[in-house]
Amino acid sequence: MMRDKEREIQEIVSSVMEKVTGTISVSISLEQAKKLIEKVEDRAKEMGVNAVIAVTNAAAHPVAVHCMDNSYIASYDVALQKAYTVVALKMSTMKLKQLSQPGGSLYGIQHTNQGKIVIFGGGEPLTVHGRLIGGLGVSGGTEEQDSALSEYGRKLAEEWF
Amino acid sequence: MMRDKEREIQEIVSSVMEKVTGTISVSISLEQAKKLIEKVEDRAKEMGVNAVIAVTNAAAHPVAVHCMDNSYIASYDVALQKAYTVVALKMSTMKLKQLSQPGGSLYGIQHTNQGKIVIFGGGEPLTVHGRLIGGLGVSGGTEEQDSALSEYGRKLAEEWF
Amino acid sequence: MMRDKEREIQEIVSSVMEKVTGTISVSISLEQAKKLIEKVEDRAKEMGVNAVIAVTNAAAHPVAVHCMDNSYIASYDVALQKAYTVVALKMSTMKLKQLSQPGGSLYGIQHTNQGKIVIFGGGEPLTVHGRLIGGLGVSGGTEEQDSALSEYGRKLAEEWF
Amino acid sequence: MMRDKEREIQEIVSSVMEKVTGTISVSISLEQAKKLIEKVEDRAKEMGVNAVIAVTNAAAHPVAVHCMDNSYIASYDVALQKAYTVVALKMSTMKLKQLSQPGGSLYGIQHTNQGKIVIFGGGEPLTVHGRLIGGLGVSGGTEEQDSALSEYGRKLAEEWF
Repeated sequence: MMRDKEREIQEIVSSVMEKVTGTISVSISLEQAKKLIEKVEDRAKEMGVNAVIAVTNAAAHPVAVHCMDNSYIASYDVALQKAYTVVALKMSTMKLKQLSQPGGSLYGIQHTNQGKIVIFGGGEPLTVHGRLIGGLGVSGGTEEQDSALSEYGRKLAEEWF
Repeated sequence: MMRDKEREIQEIVSSVMEKVTGTISVSISLEQAKKLIEKVEDRAKEMGVNAVIAVTNAAAHPVAVHCMDNSYIASYDVALQKAYTVVALKMSTMKLKQLSQPGGSLYGIQHTNQGKIVIFGGGEPLTVHGRLIGGLGVSGGTEEQDSALSEYGRKLAEEWF
Repeated sequence: MMRDKEREIQEIVSSVMEKVTGTISVSISLEQAKKLIEKVEDRAKEMGVNAVIAVTNAAAHPVAVHCMDNSYIASYDVALQKAYTVVALKMSTMKLKQLSQPGGSLYGIQHTNQGKIVIFGGGEPLTVHGRLIGGLGVSGGTEEQDSALSEYGRKLAEEWF
Repeated sequence: MMRDKEREIQEIVSSVMEKVTGTISVSISLEQAKKLIEKVEDRAKEMGVNAVIAVTNAAAHPVAVHCMDNSYIASYDVALQKAYTVVALKMSTMKLKQLSQPGGSLYGIQHTNQGKIVIFGGGEPLTVHGRLIGGLGVSGGTEEQDSALSEYGRKLAEEWF
């Protein structure tokens, strides 16, 4: 109950502030990011995946990154950049995958931002009531596994925050 | 009337100077770039697009960049590099898109210039009487929207300058 | 009067939201950035300096960049990265200059962030009632001129917003 | 008691394995890294510092990074690269600071590794019985504060693992 009241106040306040000031952004906190990563980590363990799990804030800057034991060395960059991509473009990396195939409207986008755009599954924007608060990037399993883990995390964040 | 006279004189002078000196380049000024961006910005607002709008000069260097509130973080690089691409290759990014698909004559071009070549719509060269004076890059909407905005800007520049 | 009331509400609301949510940031808008750049540009003209003037938001991402006619090509990167530096480190580049001299506590900082940290004058954080809303970077004149211009801009922002 | 027995066995086994195989490296685990970061975070809070805390493994690759709310944007790179530096050079960044001043034996080292070498305090190697298991990097306070926090973490790791 109290949570709902708080949320309502948050949304009213946000909309007022946006009219008054320039732009306002609300970001996931370290506490929330750790809680979320922990859960994705548990699920990855169940699936037998050694993943790197990264969370960015609403400005696409890193909040927390965890590399599970024996995860791929390459997964650190991939996970972090998935978490960057989903905030920088406000869409999942799976959706971006479709748009960036040869002939697609964003074909070539992976070259435009200093190699920070990832165009395969495993990254999901984190939103609260439709407002972007950060991004989640997972790398370490197959594309299906990474996508399943990032979607799991996205849903958790929607329920929690 | 007076404007036409001025242009005529400008062109005569330019062609004389090119014979006399090595190379001469006439670039869009900051004043002109701001005026152009302002117009594209107004049109973007009407279309409900939060765009980044960038203008480069005849040397492909930036003149002005504006990021509309709540535009994509990724759009800064994309818009600026569209504005670079169109001067660097003297064609719109939409035309380049056709040439750079797998099998096309410029397939791979997006890898050759440190990630500064964009191969999807939204960039247009700015010309005055066929002479390249700069480039316009727009990013923030769908490819169709970005293309419509950059074409709108190109036409404005042709009429004005 | 109304402005003061608005500010008061803003501050109360900000402090409430920070307790409720993770982190909140309020950024300079494009409208505000353009107004500020315009003023710095006028002052630069009076001083006979062809400057590049850049404004970043509270996340250190670019909001607007203007390159005055005949400014240095190198000034684009310098101005933008000054505007990045002052937000990323929450201090003016002149203060950072002191800390990053040989023997200083931050000697070497200019190498740690992919070349994005500038350690000479011309960058100032933009604050409203002590809250960081963005950064201003100026490049094109002597260090004294760039510093004078960025300080002029910082003061304007404090009065206006 | 039991812990000591375990350690003794570990060391015997390690030394045997090194003779048998090529090289062996024992790295801090994610579980240990998180526990360590948590403690450093608590101490930082007590000191009023918003720090970024990074842990690398014995191969200088990241294990975990946490960015405390309202930490500097620049601190992410700095903390992570401190944690890289201390493993890559097997010394604290404070010791490296002395060696890399103008005239020093490692003057210029900050240019040799793609900007990944940090030459001011806040980074400490993590060792267990003299064996390097990873690195700790802290950034966010003054150099003294960052150094105090990283030394605190180093000592904790020595006692625990």
